Amino acid sequence: MPGNTFGHTFRITTAGESHGPGNVVIIDGVPPGIEISVEELQVDLDRRRPGQSKIVTQRKEADIPEILSGVFEGRTTGTSLAILIRNEDQRSRDYGNIKDIYRPGHADYTFDAKYGFRDYRGGGRSSARETTVRVAAGVIAKKILQQTCGGRVVGYVTQVGDVHANIPDPGSITLEQVETRSDGTPNIVRCPDEEAADRMIELIDTVRKEQDSIGGAAEIVATGIPAGLGEPVFDKLKADLAKALFSLPAVLGVEYGIGFGCTTMRGTAHNDHFIPGQSPTIITTDSNRHGGMLGGISSGLPIVLRAAVKPTSSLSQEQPTVTKDGEPTTISTKGRHDPCLLPRFIPMAEAMVAITIVDHYLRWKSQTVLDNKEI
Amino acid sequence: MPGNTFGHTFRITTAGESHGPGNVVIIDGVPPGIEISVEELQVDLDRRRPGQSKIVTQRKEADIPEILSGVFEGRTTGTSLAILIRNEDQRSRDYGNIKDIYRPGHADYTFDAKYGFRDYRGGGRSSARETTVRVAAGVIAKKILQQTCGGRVVGYVTQVGDVHANIPDPGSITLEQVETRSDGTPNIVRCPDEEAADRMIELIDTVRKEQDSIGGAAEIVATGIPAGLGEPVFDKLKADLAKALFSLPAVLGVEYGIGFGCTTMRGTAHNDHFIPGQSPTIITTDSNRHGGMLGGISSGLPIVLRAAVKPTSSLSQEQPTVTKDGEPTTISTKGRHDPCLLPRFIPMAEAMVAITIVDHYLRWKSQTVLDNKEI
Amino acid sequence: MPGNTFGHTFRITTAGESHGPGNVVIIDGVPPGIEISVEELQVDLDRRRPGQSKIVTQRKEADIPEILSGVFEGRTTGTSLAILIRNEDQRSRDYGNIKDIYRPGHADYTFDAKYGFRDYRGGGRSSARETTVRVAAGVIAKKILQQTCGGRVVGYVTQVGDVHANIPDPGSITLEQVETRSDGTPNIVRCPDEEAADRMIELIDTVRKEQDSIGGAAEIVATGIPAGLGEPVFDKLKADLAKALFSLPAVLGVEYGIGFGCTTMRGTAHNDHFIPGQSPTIITTDSNRHGGMLGGISSGLPIVLRAAVKPTSSLSQEQPTVTKDGEPTTISTKGRHDPCLLPRFIPMAEAMVAITIVDHYLRWKSQTVLDNKEI
Amino acid sequence: MPGNTFGHTFRITTAGESHGPGNVVIIDGVPPGIEISVEELQVDLDRRRPGQSKIVTQRKEADIPEILSGVFEGRTTGTSLAILIRNEDQRSRDYGNIKDIYRPGHADYTFDAKYGFRDYRGGGRSSARETTVRVAAGVIAKKILQQTCGGRVVGYVTQVGDVHANIPDPGSITLEQVETRSDGTPNIVRCPDEEAADRMIELIDTVRKEQDSIGGAAEIVATGIPAGLGEPVFDKLKADLAKALFSLPAVLGVEYGIGFGCTTMRGTAHNDHFIPGQSPTIITTDSNRHGGMLGGISSGLPIVLRAAVKPTSSLSQEQPTVTKDGEPTTISTKGRHDPCLLPRFIPMAEAMVAITIVDHYLRWKSQTVLDNKEI
Repeated sequence: MPGNTFGHTFRITTAGESHGPGNVVIIDGVPPGIEISVEELQVDLDRRRPGQSKIVTQRKEADIPEILSGVFEGRTTGTSLAILIRNEDQRSRDYGNIKDIYRPGHADYTFDAKYGFRDYRGGGRSSARETTVRVAAGVIAKKILQQTCGGRVVGYVTQVGDVHANIPDPGSITLEQVETRSDGTPNIVRCPDEEAADRMIELIDTVRKEQDSIGGAAEIVATGIPAGLGEPVFDKLKADLAKALFSLPAVLGVEYGIGFGCTTMRGTAHNDHFIPGQSPTIITTDSNRHGGMLGGISSGLPIVLRAAVKPTSSLSQEQPTVTKDGEPTTISTKGRHDPCLLPRFIPMAEAMVAITIVDHYLRWKSQTVLDNKEI
Repeated sequence: MPGNTFGHTFRITTAGESHGPGNVVIIDGVPPGIEISVEELQVDLDRRRPGQSKIVTQRKEADIPEILSGVFEGRTTGTSLAILIRNEDQRSRDYGNIKDIYRPGHADYTFDAKYGFRDYRGGGRSSARETTVRVAAGVIAKKILQQTCGGRVVGYVTQVGDVHANIPDPGSITLEQVETRSDGTPNIVRCPDEEAADRMIELIDTVRKEQDSIGGAAEIVATGIPAGLGEPVFDKLKADLAKALFSLPAVLGVEYGIGFGCTTMRGTAHNDHFIPGQSPTIITTDSNRHGGMLGGISSGLPIVLRAAVKPTSSLSQEQPTVTKDGEPTTISTKGRHDPCLLPRFIPMAEAMVAITIVDHYLRWKSQTVLDNKEI
Repeated sequence: MPGNTFGHTFRITTAGESHGPGNVVIIDGVPPGIEISVEELQVDLDRRRPGQSKIVTQRKEADIPEILSGVFEGRTTGTSLAILIRNEDQRSRDYGNIKDIYRPGHADYTFDAKYGFRDYRGGGRSSARETTVRVAAGVIAKKILQQTCGGRVVGYVTQVGDVHANIPDPGSITLEQVETRSDGTPNIVRCPDEEAADRMIELIDTVRKEQDSIGGAAEIVATGIPAGLGEPVFDKLKADLAKALFSLPAVLGVEYGIGFGCTTMRGTAHNDHFIPGQSPTIITTDSNRHGGMLGGISSGLPIVLRAAVKPTSSLSQEQPTVTKDGEPTTISTKGRHDPCLLPRFIPMAEAMVAITIVDHYLRWKSQTVLDNKEI
Repeated sequence: MPGNTFGHTFRITTAGESHGPGNVVIIDGVPPGIEISVEELQVDLDRRRPGQSKIVTQRKEADIPEILSGVFEGRTTGTSLAILIRNEDQRSRDYGNIKDIYRPGHADYTFDAKYGFRDYRGGGRSSARETTVRVAAGVIAKKILQQTCGGRVVGYVTQVGDVHANIPDPGSITLEQVETRSDGTPNIVRCPDEEAADRMIELIDTVRKEQDSIGGAAEIVATGIPAGLGEPVFDKLKADLAKALFSLPAVLGVEYGIGFGCTTMRGTAHNDHFIPGQSPTIITTDSNRHGGMLGGISSGLPIVLRAAVKPTSSLSQEQPTVTKDGEPTTISTKGRHDPCLLPRFIPMAEAMVAITIVDHYLRWKSQTVLDNKEI
């Protein structure tokens, strides 16, 4: 059952619920000597935070991280690093409306079926609030990637409802483009195609007014990742990345490279062609339908993943459901919810991708970089 | 690096290459007392075997399993169970054409980049031949599922190129429908929509004649699985199932339930509605867009997954590529290859899904079924 | 490298240093519905606490636990349970004397050799302070054992220097005997042989006055543990218990049953004889030289382990050593240290033994208790 | 339950029984490019083999290893390496005498209690025959150690009954001394103190003639191991080494350095003193009571472990016991058994120690050897 741990060599373990004292992550396997500060953690936490723009939930949570261990005089020590993010809003509230009623699309019923009862306050452990500490751990993973191989992970929204972004070159998108529009204003929907971004915002605004929600898709791209990461046969990089993204709430599908587009293709059209790379020992391809992974191992090209994210299940309009005794009733989830999960999904997805790649980077180094190169 | 192990409580570890002595799996965590025979293993191995029909590779491999341990007097003992499948064709051959040339779409380059050199004979460890022993392990997983909770896992082909099957009720498809057509002849493409199956076979035949290959998609359905399997937060059942399918060669995408279809939906249309189930303690839903999993935990409804499988990379026609020194050249892969991977993919995918669910079943039992029910 | 996690199915992960903000443990795999309170955690924390008697260190730490997650309305929820124990004394102090000097018998040098630098304040991660949260996790493990199989874990001191206790029947010792003398006063040395206890206290007092320290041994006994726990071949119960005890600071040796006494014995004298047990399906033995484990699997008899604990390395008298540059110097460790580690070692050792047995209990249940008993 | 896997980064998984088809090990995490041959594996297998001298069991087993995967053209490929050792003697035999009777000191009863039944032929999975493949894996671990850091693991017998060897400098003992006496004849008891060896042989011969057996102790020494291996806090090197040795059959106690000798020592006498080492960055100690590990992390000094091994439980003389129904009976184990386990124990113990250290070596490299040394 221990399902609260992710990773083999760079490993995170989390705990915490939506309305308990807080969420905590223990990160094990952090290389020593990495400079890290709470301010750096805060950057991505702010990208994930409620209330950051008009198109996300207006709940207020500051999400201030406290580093409990593993950092001394500003640098990681190599021992386990713990980060605590306290929940601000723990006051007693009336949860009578969800204590005995199963919210459609939520894990209320499956938690009851599994454990016999549940912490019903705001979803308890099934709340997306537990992703706060994943995001904090992701910041550390990104720093390790950057300092070891110059790797970088950037995500952005490619689809909201039927509005699709046009991103001709995923490997070229920068964090700046994701966060800030060309006019210097915040890119609140995190779509670098600004024309599409405008229509996405409009659509989100419409569904919000209609007390509804809308699904979408995100693309996450890792560049600068050396060829050779990923383990045959079960811990293929594609397999661990897929698990990482599917471990996030609301993800119903994951693909990489050409993805589901491969189903209608012929081999002659699908195969990327190898060509000489920028140095004699590096081979590359003239297209990237393989999404940066061949045989589950990184090829050196940009790793490109896409995730399908369902529309928010919580709706302020009435929905039919049953009580835990099976009695028909209706529910409208008060609180303030995201009309579209995608803008806040981006930092969560980046974090999980970065954590997975760092894990594989350290695994790769462990096995294949021998001290005595002659052997 | 140990990437050759899958599962936490029901755990398989594999070894073996395409042209070495053979492939072996060690299965750990098998409950004692399960009756098992090599004949039962052979059934699914025959469904995976080359040469089983005109639309798959015509290579000959009998794939005879030998149980090395863990079974005594026809029953599992509870100790680790090993199965060996020897390779028949180990004779020395001329691999000069692939030793120093990178086959497009294959792992030749990424293995070289990772390890510095590779067993180039037939793909070595990256060959799909390693899935033989996964299929054997899957037979044992299926038996455990059947004997403990009455669970069942069935897969079938839903798409080949642009031919789509129409499967209105995934949970109703039987193994018999997948294997045998209504007229009693073998369902060689493993698509239960017989009209679509005819067109799929025709398409596969066409691409084969054109020395090309074609992609497609498969659906894998698990029924009879109790509500409550899957662990928050990382080992969600959806996450482990996705990893399981992505660990198979050629899989570029995985989705469950409505999958990528959710991206254009509104919450009101997407949420399944809870209704009373067949007994007072069971709740169900009147639709299954959630694919049998909510919050990553099984809901009791059929678990429905889909995988996108790329067109076979090996083609008998010439393809441009480079040598390992980056010199342009061409390659045509002699051997005999599947023009479409889907028909033989089905037993592999069923095996991985069954193995994953048994693992979670045993994990669930461990934590939540206490001896003293009062507590 | 992730070495901060212990256990397979009942799993603890810890973080924290001696003088950082605090120590935290995440416990994964806790069965749902177990009643638990901070008051219960406090009981064993108080048994471990500094300043509890005149023969232990006189440092002051209240060691107040905060449950961060995994408990709702007084009962475990089944999701990951986190406990935080803040360090009280974090004020800036002059560590100049140990920053650049290697304390004899401590991990200062090996941490520097491993990580390149270290948190030198009070030993950082190598301080025994990290065992606070292990003790808290142990309380939960003890409760699970008690509620599932009626199992119990009790430890006591059997040796201090050359003073040996006489414990004819380890399985009969109670927590009460360990904590309280027959006259109702606290058993401050935790040795149930009161005559020996008096001499132990006298010896500890002597070495303390001489600014020295003294080693000793502890016995930990688990009773009520059903036969069948432990996994062939690597995760033998004896192997995991030994690892558990060796993971504690200062432990230089572990044995079970007759232990090192077996080296001079003949088989005829060593083998315990099987005899009928208290019910037709239970077999027992007429002696317990096997310490409750045969083939690494529990036999139903009391599990009896012993650990050798070295004399405290920190001494207030001057000891010769070197600086990190290899320059000869001397050091006297100011602070207040235990002249003998054994009295406070008992709750730590009990915790690790209980955690290990619960892990194996849940593993056993997972594999061998099938729903359908007929198979 | 999966208890048949050992190691985190260098990981072995085994299967096999005493009288089944054979035993198999899968080794995962092997660095690529290591030269290895079956002849090298055979060397240690011959040191473990029955019938090698007059003082061990006279059973005949050739123990010929077959490498199934992971080696190509004489070098490891980096993918999982499997080794199969078939059992020669599989003929049907009359096991009536042990099928329903519990042999004293064996795992017959505990296996029945755990699994409900057992493979009773020669002990099945609880037979020491499973250590064949551990020894084979140990050869590969020793090669990796030798090629990466120049490390070496050597074991020898220090005690048989009350005969103690005098080994003043454990770190200086060579494999040659263990295997060959100064006169060139085989050192059949594997004790480098030849005078003690003579008396050990005499004692073993005496107990054999008396249809009895005798216990003893072994010392295993690893030299050339760099400082810094081992992970705080649970995966201390001492903890994993202890688990490794306790996972071997018949081991009742493990200690390192001064071991249980610490219990009567004072801190002033126990602490080793740091002194400058052979280079400016290396610190050493002027004694090695700490057995090469401080805080569970290697110090660079020889790692010195001792294991207590019980007298063989199988005796050819009659012993009282019960049937599985609890009926009193007697048993004399026919077969041919070792009168003392120690001589054949040495290669098993060396293998487990080497495997553990390689695992930690690769873990250490993964975390602490960053490409960019500046950070």
